[in-house]
Amino acid sequence: IPAAIDYHSVLLEDEFHRLADSTIQDLQEKFEEYGDSVQVDDFDIDYGNEVLTLKLGDHGTYVLNKQTPNRQIWLSSPVSGPQRFDWDRSSQAWVYRRTKAHLLKILESELEELCGEPISLS
Amino acid sequence: IPAAIDYHSVLLEDEFHRLADSTIQDLQEKFEEYGDSVQVDDFDIDYGNEVLTLKLGDHGTYVLNKQTPNRQIWLSSPVSGPQRFDWDRSSQAWVYRRTKAHLLKILESELEELCGEPISLS
Repeated sequence: IPAAIDYHSVLLEDEFHRLADSTIQDLQEKFEEYGDSVQVDDFDIDYGNEVLTLKLGDHGTYVLNKQTPNRQIWLSSPVSGPQRFDWDRSSQAWVYRRTKAHLLKILESELEELCGEPISLS
Repeated sequence: IPAAIDYHSVLLEDEFHRLADSTIQDLQEKFEEYGDSVQVDDFDIDYGNEVLTLKLGDHGTYVLNKQTPNRQIWLSSPVSGPQRFDWDRSSQAWVYRRTKAHLLKILESELEELCGEPISLS
């Protein structure tokens, strides 16, 4: 069951799309640069229909997608499982309410662990 | 944290790909037929990089992808959230261990609810 929504902080749909698209586009670019610097077989990035996929061969597949009705970005991570991020106005970041973890920090830490090279996403 | 894996029933990678690809391809075809019969604005299906996306406009986005290291199909549902399905040899179906729910049954029930038309996926 999706987490309850705090309607005081709900983004307008346009604002949501602007923020989420910018994050996803930025991640795509940084993943592409990163792919050139790491040695991972079957490293593959795809963006289509507003879904960003990062395949890391035997390490599994990351999927990021917008969930517009909830104003969330959803992440499927082969390391930490599925997580849903809301835009946090105070930190200007996508945050998983349950753990307060930041989307970009999670990806930085997991990708470094999986691929053996640091990546800077924030 | 991903659910523990019962190694007694783990699929070989080839077998996993065959079963998962067949399920995902079959779903794509049935979603396409379904899209012709329902009145949902911005109904859109996309398959790329082994990820199947079903966009239902204001109702949100479904994402299905293979998670090969776990031999699972992962579903992101705008209704029921994220769920991970293992192949169950006895029922010959993708089953969410935690709830014993079947992937195809979940999709049938949610899509009928969201789009107002029954869909047969099994």
